[in-house]
Parts: sequence; structure tokens; C-alpha cells
Amino acid sequence: MRNWTLDVRDIPDPVPGSGQVLVRTRACGICGSDLHMLKHGAAMAALGEELRKHAPPEPIETVRMESDRDVVMGHEFCGEVVDLGPDCTNLETGDLVVSIPVAFDGAGLHTIGYSNNYPGGYAELMVLSDLAAMKVPNGLDYRRAALTEPLAVGIHAVAKSKIAPGDAAVVLGCGPVGLAVIDDLARRGIEPIVASDFSPARRALAAKVGAHEVVDPSDERPIDAWRRVDGAKPLVIFEAVGVPGMIDQAMLMAPRDTRILVVGVCMEEDRIRPMAGIGRELNVQFALGYDPTEFAGALQALAEGTTRYPDIVTGTVGVDGVPQAFTDLGNPEVHAKILVEP
Amino acid sequence: MRNWTLDVRDIPDPVPGSGQVLVRTRACGICGSDLHMLKHGAAMAALGEELRKHAPPEPIETVRMESDRDVVMGHEFCGEVVDLGPDCTNLETGDLVVSIPVAFDGAGLHTIGYSNNYPGGYAELMVLSDLAAMKVPNGLDYRRAALTEPLAVGIHAVAKSKIAPGDAAVVLGCGPVGLAVIDDLARRGIEPIVASDFSPARRALAAKVGAHEVVDPSDERPIDAWRRVDGAKPLVIFEAVGVPGMIDQAMLMAPRDTRILVVGVCMEEDRIRPMAGIGRELNVQFALGYDPTEFAGALQALAEGTTRYPDIVTGTVGVDGVPQAFTDLGNPEVHAKILVEP
Repeated sequence: MRNWTLDVRDIPDPVPGSGQVLVRTRACGICGSDLHMLKHGAAMAALGEELRKHAPPEPIETVRMESDRDVVMGHEFCGEVVDLGPDCTNLETGDLVVSIPVAFDGAGLHTIGYSNNYPGGYAELMVLSDLAAMKVPNGLDYRRAALTEPLAVGIHAVAKSKIAPGDAAVVLGCGPVGLAVIDDLARRGIEPIVASDFSPARRALAAKVGAHEVVDPSDERPIDAWRRVDGAKPLVIFEAVGVPGMIDQAMLMAPRDTRILVVGVCMEEDRIRPMAGIGRELNVQFALGYDPTEFAGALQALAEGTTRYPDIVTGTVGVDGVPQAFTDLGNPEVHAKILVEP
Repeated sequence: MRNWTLDVRDIPDPVPGSGQVLVRTRACGICGSDLHMLKHGAAMAALGEELRKHAPPEPIETVRMESDRDVVMGHEFCGEVVDLGPDCTNLETGDLVVSIPVAFDGAGLHTIGYSNNYPGGYAELMVLSDLAAMKVPNGLDYRRAALTEPLAVGIHAVAKSKIAPGDAAVVLGCGPVGLAVIDDLARRGIEPIVASDFSPARRALAAKVGAHEVVDPSDERPIDAWRRVDGAKPLVIFEAVGVPGMIDQAMLMAPRDTRILVVGVCMEEDRIRPMAGIGRELNVQFALGYDPTEFAGALQALAEGTTRYPDIVTGTVGVDGVPQAFTDLGNPEVHAKILVEP
């Protein structure tokens, strides 16, 4: 990607520095954020600048992506170690690994997949940190291991929501993030889980990963579906759509004292009606990412086969197929998660 | 008030029903919500209709105010019982009382001060519930007792924020609500409390009720003032201004993992940038009102003299002076809280 436009091109092989390893990508999922980035990247960059003006100083400086230089996206990857830089103590050549997509070096912190320095998983070769990477437990298929990152997003959102046994959940949006949330809620025994999406294919996936009730919001409002099947337990609403207007919608439908967990990444300005929140004393918790423990938990769930999240993979492409895959992901009836195998 | 216009007029004396008492108002504070109501009442009513369309059914129906019929505002009152309806077991004639401003009867729940049936404290006579009213402890001046309601709003907001010893607070807006928040934070020993307001008079009141640092946001950003005096403790930001843009401002300035307690009542549509919340995993808690325990706690603090909140009273008027007082409250240099003594 350069100037918010996608192309497929040869770039120089990256070289692992001290404490870094060279990894050949085996599989890398295409994330909705990558699609967002192409569409809203310029506006995002401007907003990012403004946020930084107000934000506290960071403990470690994040090296910002420059959009007019090459960026190889892809942060949901699994790969095989093919070379070791100096001072590696954790990994060996041949190890199959996943990693939180960040790299540290003298310049600061880099977000792999949104960096000019560290190519992401749509590249054939990547550089990862020897200590940050985690070995894939013996026998887990690399395609499943590549789901560690998006599954960790769901695990983190559910943890951040502080949902507890005896609570109910409504999940708005059954894309890969909403599905990861549903999968984790189901593994925690939350019931009922009411999932909402306009797409029949996405609703079918939601039921597969553990939703007890799926609803087409053009037929029935998700909150009415919740009232129909439960309506009594304390409720957490997960906003996993990430387009303008969704937080307002969640606030309008929420019963008194509801927590709304915003895990959908809305990169644009948005509009709310504070009175909806005030009158019912709502709580809106925003969530992003995961911590290393949650990331390891996702890998473990995949390795132990306790998650149905691998069911969301609907296709596989080579590097040349990435631009077409970005287009195909626009149709929720056909695809939910496409893996790139460079 | 009728059709969102204020006037002073004779109305028939209200008659206490079963379990109700007739009260002669001794003092009633003018609340910012009353000023809001005159300005934004029509828009509020329309929004209220829309919220109700989406909202869950209420356990007890609230009887809605009709704006084309008379409404006597005033919900921060203290009065003397002058007559008892049938079946009263709690109060006696001559008791000085305060009350949560709600009344129940066969028609449902009425909000005193925003009701066509129950005149509020700008009237000479009110009808209150015998069991909901609380006797003012012996010796507490009625003017101080009339501050129970707004002080309870601050106590509730602070409780809802879950602020704990060792946390710091930034309070945006030093009107009566912000000042009640500061007062309660100070009594809980929270330190530092950084308070922000454009008005020097309001900042002086903030310091009086317990703010450790007061800041004019046109000189220094409140978050920078917090960094200057602390910058280390977990932070809660209280939004007590209640105009569009304030929630966005609070989100932009908030460090990672900050809780934002919205106690300012913004009755209009508002605009936020969700990315500010997402990137730093902010939590936005909306608050309104108080429970009976918090209300009783406010009365107790006033009776025991442990609160400096009475310092915020800047004037007293008769009923005829109410329209002028509404105008005067527009100038924060002159007035913070005006009491009506009908």
C-alpha cells in the first residue's frame, strides 16, 4: 500500500536485527481494519494527529506510518522462522510462530502491518521479535494459528466488558470481530447471546460459533429479540459494526444500567444523543487490541480445539489475490475471513 | 411555565391525597435544568418521545408533562408541613421537610417540578408524599436544607464514578453540579482535585469547596494542569458542563484507561470521535439523579456542617423575582445558586 492504494510488488527482503528473527509467512488473515485503512486512512491520519496533540506523552514512542512510503499490511499472521538475527534465545529455525504485531528497535515501537519499516503478513518475509513471538503448539495447523490475533480481539473485548455469569449479551454485527466476541462469550457460558446482522451468511456463522438467537435487524430489533428470549438478566451490548450511528443506536436501545462495549472501530466522526445515556445511566466502554496473556489464551483455545472460530474462514488466496480478496470481502454473503498464503 | 415561557401567576391550591401532605415552600433553589428546560424544552420533548420508542417498558409509568398546560418548576426545595391528607403516618404539621422530587398516585409517577399535576418549589404550596419526605434535622436552616437535592446529585455522580482513594480528579465546569462533585470529592479525601471553569467567580467557589488546583481553560488546558500537579495517579474526569462538544473534549484529553463521568446534562445532539475512546480504551459513564440513601447523605452532611456547599448560594429572591433570577444566572460572575423564598 502506498498513498492509500493497494498494489502487489517486489520489495527488498527485510533483515533481522539483534533479538529479531526472519519469518516466512505461511498464512495471514485480511482484517476489516485493513479495508478501513484504505478507505479512511487519510482522515484517520489527520484525526491521529489531532489526538496526539491532546494525548499524554507515550512511555515508548510509536513510530508513525508515512502514507507516501510503502506499507505492507497484514497483522493476523502465522509463519515459520527461516533465519535468526544476533542474540536470539527463544526461537530456532523451523519454528512455527505467531506474534503480537509489534516490533521494538532503537527508533521506538512499530506496529507490524501499519509500518514503513516492518512489512506485515501479506509479504513473503517478515521480521519479528524473538521474545515477543510465541511457538505454535505442536500439530496446530498454521491456518488456524493465523486466527490467534482476531480471536484475541474478541477475548479482550469480552474481558473488558466485565460480563459475568448470569449476564446476557447482545452482539451488534457478526463480522470477524463480532464472531470472535460471540465465540468467547459462548465459551464462558454466557446465555443468552443474541446476535444481529443484516447478512444471512453472517447470522449462520454467528449461530455456528455459539449465538443462541440470531436476528435480522430489518425484521426485528435486536433488543426486542433479547426481550423475547430473556429480558431479565443484566445486559451487555457489544457494538462490533464500527460505522457512524452504531453507538447512538446501541445507546437508544439499551435498558437502564446497561454496559455498551464498543469494539467496532469507527474511524469517522460520530453523533450521539447524550440524553439517552444520561437518562438510563449507561456505561460506554471502548476497547482495542489485547494483552499478551489474552493473545496466548487465543492461541491455546485454537490449539486445544475448544473454539469454533476456525469455522469463520471462507477462503484462501495467494499474494496476487489480495486486491480481489479486499473487494470480495465487501460481500458478507460470500466471505467472512479470507487467509492470504504468500 | 407554559409553552416554554415563564410567568408568575396565581394557581389553585393543591390538595393532598391519601398518604400526602401539604407543604408551604420555605426555599427552593433554581437549577440549571430549569434554565435548560426553557431553552431546549421543545427539542427535549421530541427527543424524549424518540427515546421512549426504543426504551424498555418502565416498571411504573411516568406521567409526562404537557408543555401547553401549566407547570410550576422547582425541585430543590425545603418546606414546612401545613396540612396532612388521609393516612399519613410519618409527618406532622409544623415539620420542616425535604424530599426527593417525585410523587406517586393512581396515575403513576410524577416528577415534581416538571409536572402538570404537582407544582414544584417555586409555588407557595406543594403536595409531597408523607413517606418519601425526610424531616430536616433540628436546627438546620431551611436555606441550607434546600441544597440537599443538588448536593445529592454530586454525591451520586462521585459514587457512580467509582473513584477510589489514590485516584485523582479533573472536574470540567464549576456550576452548582460541578461544585457539588468537588465538595464530595474533597470530603472523600481525593487529591488532587483539578477544577476548570472560564469564570473567575466560579473558580473561587471551586477552591472554597475543596478544589486543590483551579484553572482557566483559556490559559491552560485542565489536563495539563493535572499533569503539572500530579500526572501519575489513575484519573477520573467529571464532565459537569453539559453543552455539545464537552464529551468529545473530555475524550480527547483523557489519558489511557480514564473514566469519564458525564454528569453535565447535554440536551442536544452531540458529536464525538470514537477513535479517541477506542485508542485509549476510555470508559464513559453517564449519571443522573441519586438514590434515597444518597439524598439522605446530602441532608446529613448539611446538618452536620461537614460540607462547604452552602458557600455556593449567591442570592435570594421572592416568587416575583424568579424571571429576573433566571436571567441573572446567565452571568457566572454574579451568581451560582439563587434560592427562591416564595
